Amino acid sequence: MASTFKHHRRLYWYEAIIALLLLLGAAQAYAENREFELTIEERKIQVAPDLEYQVFAYNGQVPAPLIHVKEGDDVTIHLTNNTTLPHTIHWHGQYQRANLVDSTEPSNWKMDGVPGVTQKAVQPGETFTYKFRAEKTGSTWYHCHVNVSEHVGMRGMWGPLIVDPAKPTKLEKKVTKDVIMMFSSWDSNYAEKLGSGGSPVEPSNYFSINGRSFPTTQPINVKKGDVVRFRMFGAGGELHSIHIHGHDMLITHKDGLPLPAPYYADTILVAPGERYDAIMEMNNPGIWMVHDHIDPHVTNNGKHDGGVMTVIAYEGMMPVMSDDSHGMLPNDDPDFYYSESMKKPYGMYNNEHFAGAPLQTEGRRERRREQHDAH
Amino acid sequence: MASTFKHHRRLYWYEAIIALLLLLGAAQAYAENREFELTIEERKIQVAPDLEYQVFAYNGQVPAPLIHVKEGDDVTIHLTNNTTLPHTIHWHGQYQRANLVDSTEPSNWKMDGVPGVTQKAVQPGETFTYKFRAEKTGSTWYHCHVNVSEHVGMRGMWGPLIVDPAKPTKLEKKVTKDVIMMFSSWDSNYAEKLGSGGSPVEPSNYFSINGRSFPTTQPINVKKGDVVRFRMFGAGGELHSIHIHGHDMLITHKDGLPLPAPYYADTILVAPGERYDAIMEMNNPGIWMVHDHIDPHVTNNGKHDGGVMTVIAYEGMMPVMSDDSHGMLPNDDPDFYYSESMKKPYGMYNNEHFAGAPLQTEGRRERRREQHDAH
Amino acid sequence: MASTFKHHRRLYWYEAIIALLLLLGAAQAYAENREFELTIEERKIQVAPDLEYQVFAYNGQVPAPLIHVKEGDDVTIHLTNNTTLPHTIHWHGQYQRANLVDSTEPSNWKMDGVPGVTQKAVQPGETFTYKFRAEKTGSTWYHCHVNVSEHVGMRGMWGPLIVDPAKPTKLEKKVTKDVIMMFSSWDSNYAEKLGSGGSPVEPSNYFSINGRSFPTTQPINVKKGDVVRFRMFGAGGELHSIHIHGHDMLITHKDGLPLPAPYYADTILVAPGERYDAIMEMNNPGIWMVHDHIDPHVTNNGKHDGGVMTVIAYEGMMPVMSDDSHGMLPNDDPDFYYSESMKKPYGMYNNEHFAGAPLQTEGRRERRREQHDAH
Repeated sequence: MASTFKHHRRLYWYEAIIALLLLLGAAQAYAENREFELTIEERKIQVAPDLEYQVFAYNGQVPAPLIHVKEGDDVTIHLTNNTTLPHTIHWHGQYQRANLVDSTEPSNWKMDGVPGVTQKAVQPGETFTYKFRAEKTGSTWYHCHVNVSEHVGMRGMWGPLIVDPAKPTKLEKKVTKDVIMMFSSWDSNYAEKLGSGGSPVEPSNYFSINGRSFPTTQPINVKKGDVVRFRMFGAGGELHSIHIHGHDMLITHKDGLPLPAPYYADTILVAPGERYDAIMEMNNPGIWMVHDHIDPHVTNNGKHDGGVMTVIAYEGMMPVMSDDSHGMLPNDDPDFYYSESMKKPYGMYNNEHFAGAPLQTEGRRERRREQHDAH
Repeated sequence: MASTFKHHRRLYWYEAIIALLLLLGAAQAYAENREFELTIEERKIQVAPDLEYQVFAYNGQVPAPLIHVKEGDDVTIHLTNNTTLPHTIHWHGQYQRANLVDSTEPSNWKMDGVPGVTQKAVQPGETFTYKFRAEKTGSTWYHCHVNVSEHVGMRGMWGPLIVDPAKPTKLEKKVTKDVIMMFSSWDSNYAEKLGSGGSPVEPSNYFSINGRSFPTTQPINVKKGDVVRFRMFGAGGELHSIHIHGHDMLITHKDGLPLPAPYYADTILVAPGERYDAIMEMNNPGIWMVHDHIDPHVTNNGKHDGGVMTVIAYEGMMPVMSDDSHGMLPNDDPDFYYSESMKKPYGMYNNEHFAGAPLQTEGRRERRREQHDAH
Repeated sequence: MASTFKHHRRLYWYEAIIALLLLLGAAQAYAENREFELTIEERKIQVAPDLEYQVFAYNGQVPAPLIHVKEGDDVTIHLTNNTTLPHTIHWHGQYQRANLVDSTEPSNWKMDGVPGVTQKAVQPGETFTYKFRAEKTGSTWYHCHVNVSEHVGMRGMWGPLIVDPAKPTKLEKKVTKDVIMMFSSWDSNYAEKLGSGGSPVEPSNYFSINGRSFPTTQPINVKKGDVVRFRMFGAGGELHSIHIHGHDMLITHKDGLPLPAPYYADTILVAPGERYDAIMEMNNPGIWMVHDHIDPHVTNNGKHDGGVMTVIAYEGMMPVMSDDSHGMLPNDDPDFYYSESMKKPYGMYNNEHFAGAPLQTEGRRERRREQHDAH
């Protein structure tokens, strides 16, 4: 009996160790299923004080809601198209490799969102369900893939899809504040012509961060000691050469993935489709401009100051006013760069500051249908 | 006698070893002389279904023929100008250091192809012989250097010069398929005005891969397990932000030479003159778009879909058709990306799919001479 | 006594060693105070043979004078605005961290030169004193920050601020010749409209290196064995894709700081605000073009050859002339790339070749005031 009892105790210890290892492995591997609803609405947003613009807005807002998940999560999105034109969603950066939808297919490629290639476009009134595994980590994004020169270039059909890696880098773990900046541009001639625009021979004349041009951008509010992570997206059709005053950016990620050789820069060129992450310690109190150095991009239709321009504002610092009408930025949306939403648990988050207003009447819908048929 | 015989046998073994080493060294060092003929012809090519364009075409085709040689080869090109305007060839990336032509010169600089600086331009009817050593390895290219804003920007006067390094990297050796993509643009206003065009104030309205705009581009046909090497060239005057779906590109080479710190990207900005090589394993079956993310660049004169757009098509996969008129790509030229020619022995290779059609009559030639004199 | 004496001698040796260490430390740490005067003048400069352009010129010249100091120096600039519009100076790349001006502030942020944020703009007739420590090393620069789309994009309000690091890299120490190239562009429609211009919908039609378009650029004169350092600045509102013939550039610095993984390139894209340093050994005698590969940028208003174009000319080499009117560059300013000034002791250096001519009369000043009020 004594020997049996002793034998039993040894198994108990082994079992405990094995159970602990299994739990640790499971904790590491545990991926969530996350399910969200997205609609597309026709809206108008205030891009600049003198520019109201008609858009196709995911969940009625531009930019689209933040989707924030963890590496390995399975994401389900029910997309309902409440507009008068067809659309899709392409999950830019995601591999669509893990097959979640159709076991007869060799991969998840039919969730890639390309009309005519991976699916039929989602028609007005239809609902389509996307399902994919968040395999690619970091700053990825989602956008329409129908008639991109209009829908992506000029109608705000894009939002951030941030996938936290299972194994973040040492530096990433120090970040205390995410700042998501999606750069894009607009052609005022098409502000009220939903369904057209995007020609290569017609230049843009307004430029924006998260769909807003200075002075309707917001300051980036920080305190000394913050470790800030810029997540910069080339969301529209123009390039943007982003310059920060008072600090160097350490460029750490390209298109979501860590760079093998991060480098310092005070100015970074962001081309359409690209993402760059930069990490900086806020160790230099003051008010520091952050802006596009492509000089016409800090105008609104040629008038200064405007466009892709904001400031890093350290707590307690006040700008010097002047009669150069530089203006003080409004300071009423702490989530303008998704900083607050990025601190919440994984999920999808709307931002009512990004929401657009409904368009006029049925009369307008008729006109757009005519334009579309004329295409 | 016995000792003499023994002595002789030792020499025999030493000689064998020495001979073997000499052979190995020679095999490694053995460089070929390669001699080719190139003409320049006035042709018209079908860039898009609605755009026929007059070009100056090396060997009558756009892009120009592939020249594929090995590091250290001596290359001789006899260029005959069968057009009505002067031209040259600049071997972009080649050092012109090893002096093959004129022992009174300190280098081979007079083979660099710059009119007025290294040579007189090659006049209509003339033949000029270029001779240089292929010292710079990787994705280099050749193009005219007379009036580049027209001849290079808009008349298709460029082709790939691929120089295999004597010591390729480990990853390079795994490549099973080369995909050469030369990006450029066109201004339809000058389609029939050979001898003018290229102004900085007149925008491009058509955009192409290897001189063709979707839907006249071709799919990139692959099978699972292929290791694909994109060789991307900024051949024209615009930038192109090239995005691939379903895969990350490992960016391995810049302007032909290996990067010390290769990095992953899903979108790469290719500026005029630049080359980037990306290597990817085809491990994700499906049909995946490859396109310029500068949104107007995937239109033909503003109409979607068009421009710099194709797909990676895994063997056996079929796209989903739809009434978004996305269209299925023609699939009749496996050498559209030079993939087949790159598998052949070193040499120069024409591609009749790239060939243009002859222009009309003498009347047109007269008109061009007048335009040229008016310059 | 003997032991005391012996003890004294040991202290003497220790003292000597300590004194030597202190001297070495001091020599390394010794930072200068450097004080300079800058004015802003309304001038006109000859950008191209057919383009004279009105500018706001620091010290009456475009580009502005070289300011060359050492890491840690304290720099004082007295700026006097002799023009009819307000201006500032932003020290692009400098952190403004060490507080030299106002002990009630947490940093030197009020010397950052941004109107309405860090200071009131410097009005016509006023003098403003900037004082900052040169903390950021390498190729930094200074430019106006009022109405940048006109003043920086088109009026030449920029110059190089080169800060030598206390600990240069091994390769930097080998450099025998600095070549500073500031790229920018011009819209001829605004040549005589000081106070307006810079709209995003009006394209540039002239392109320049250090404010001059070929053929009014200068050759880069070198001799075999020189180690040349290009310091390339995106000073205006356009991108420039800079290609060098006959050599590879080793890209060593980005925005002034050393890259962790320098890489070879023959073509480098320089966006507005960015700086790249490239180091090359002159080991290939000849005459080698250096030019923008964005093809329209080597025209003057569409006419070839022009724009951003020059040559590296090895001592004793002569170009081949031709009737393609390529033209031989003037060769009368060895300081066109600041090469001579960079060899002088630290300080500020004017270049009379860069100086503009005075504008006409009071009548013009009246007209500009009207334009400004209409803004």
